[in-house]
Amino acid sequence: MISFEVPKNTIKRLPIYLRILENLEEEGKAVFSSQDFESRMDIKPAVLRKDLAYFGNLGVRGQGYNVEKLKAEIAGLLGISSQVWETAIIGAGNIARALMRYGDFKRINLKIVAAFDSNPSKIGKKIRDISVYGMADMEKQIARSSIKFVILTVPGKAAEEIVARLKRTRIRGIVNFTPRYLQVSKKIKVLNINITAEILTMFYYLKRGGKK
Amino acid sequence: MISFEVPKNTIKRLPIYLRILENLEEEGKAVFSSQDFESRMDIKPAVLRKDLAYFGNLGVRGQGYNVEKLKAEIAGLLGISSQVWETAIIGAGNIARALMRYGDFKRINLKIVAAFDSNPSKIGKKIRDISVYGMADMEKQIARSSIKFVILTVPGKAAEEIVARLKRTRIRGIVNFTPRYLQVSKKIKVLNINITAEILTMFYYLKRGGKK
Repeated sequence: MISFEVPKNTIKRLPIYLRILENLEEEGKAVFSSQDFESRMDIKPAVLRKDLAYFGNLGVRGQGYNVEKLKAEIAGLLGISSQVWETAIIGAGNIARALMRYGDFKRINLKIVAAFDSNPSKIGKKIRDISVYGMADMEKQIARSSIKFVILTVPGKAAEEIVARLKRTRIRGIVNFTPRYLQVSKKIKVLNINITAEILTMFYYLKRGGKK
Repeated sequence: MISFEVPKNTIKRLPIYLRILENLEEEGKAVFSSQDFESRMDIKPAVLRKDLAYFGNLGVRGQGYNVEKLKAEIAGLLGISSQVWETAIIGAGNIARALMRYGDFKRINLKIVAAFDSNPSKIGKKIRDISVYGMADMEKQIARSSIKFVILTVPGKAAEEIVARLKRTRIRGIVNFTPRYLQVSKKIKVLNINITAEILTMFYYLKRGGKK
């Protein structure tokens, strides 16, 4: 049913659609139009319709979309379910500690089950019930777990060495918070979340004085 | 010279190009081809050429691009200069504290000059030399400063109220780390950085077993 040719940008928009549907539901709305959507995000109705068309017929022409049904469909597409997704954080620094305390992960059934760091003063400690292991134990702990992806928060200069080690594990995804842009292999999906890069696009817009 | 019709996705790629150029420079490379770029990121040479074409003739046909020159051009486009960009953080929670300690901001001359929180136990304290003010002082402190954009890290349910207040200041940009998807007004540029949404796209890829 699902085409593997779904564009990357469509997939990136799905979580945003889900978030807006959750907001609509909180407001007690049962049905919405693509125009309702447009008023909440800068995505054109035609883009929404095209995105949703990749996943089959989710709307009723002329009657709009059913909030609850579409929400369930998108949540399912994204793999949110009663099943808990487990992950580990590599690098137990400031960003990692913030993520370990991040309340919003509960909403998507994401659980951080381990952290790894090379600093002896952190190893063996717990942060919010999450054990911090030494970097040397990374492969062993991953093999023991059911983790399919990791969150990488080590300093940029350490990123490549860790990635080389991860390639030899069964890890299939890396959420990369390091300042290094990573492209790994066909086998491992990398999501580069570069906070500095995002803020640079803000500089760009403010410098231009325009807004698109 | 610069067209205001530069696509949003092109602007999003500029900081990534900059990062790769910095890496190339560290490796002592003076010239590179679009194929060199392709091997480091999953962007096709035609996309790179088209992106750079928006900003004038930055490459020499058949001879590749000059690393130093292109780096300086893109840094200039993005508004990185000796000038320091000042910002404030609204909400002094876990994500805020991680950002206040984030070393990579120095690279782009970004300085967090103030933080705001509603928790009396935080107000009047300092985090890494950054003063935490009460939420009631937000407008006053913004008016006193040269801040053009803020970083929003309050809980989702507080986001809309803060945004309503920011609309009445001279703030022209919001980097939104709250779980709420925000669209503000034509006057204020919002960058929504939704960590949960990013991780949901990882679920999607892993569930499909594919990688694009």
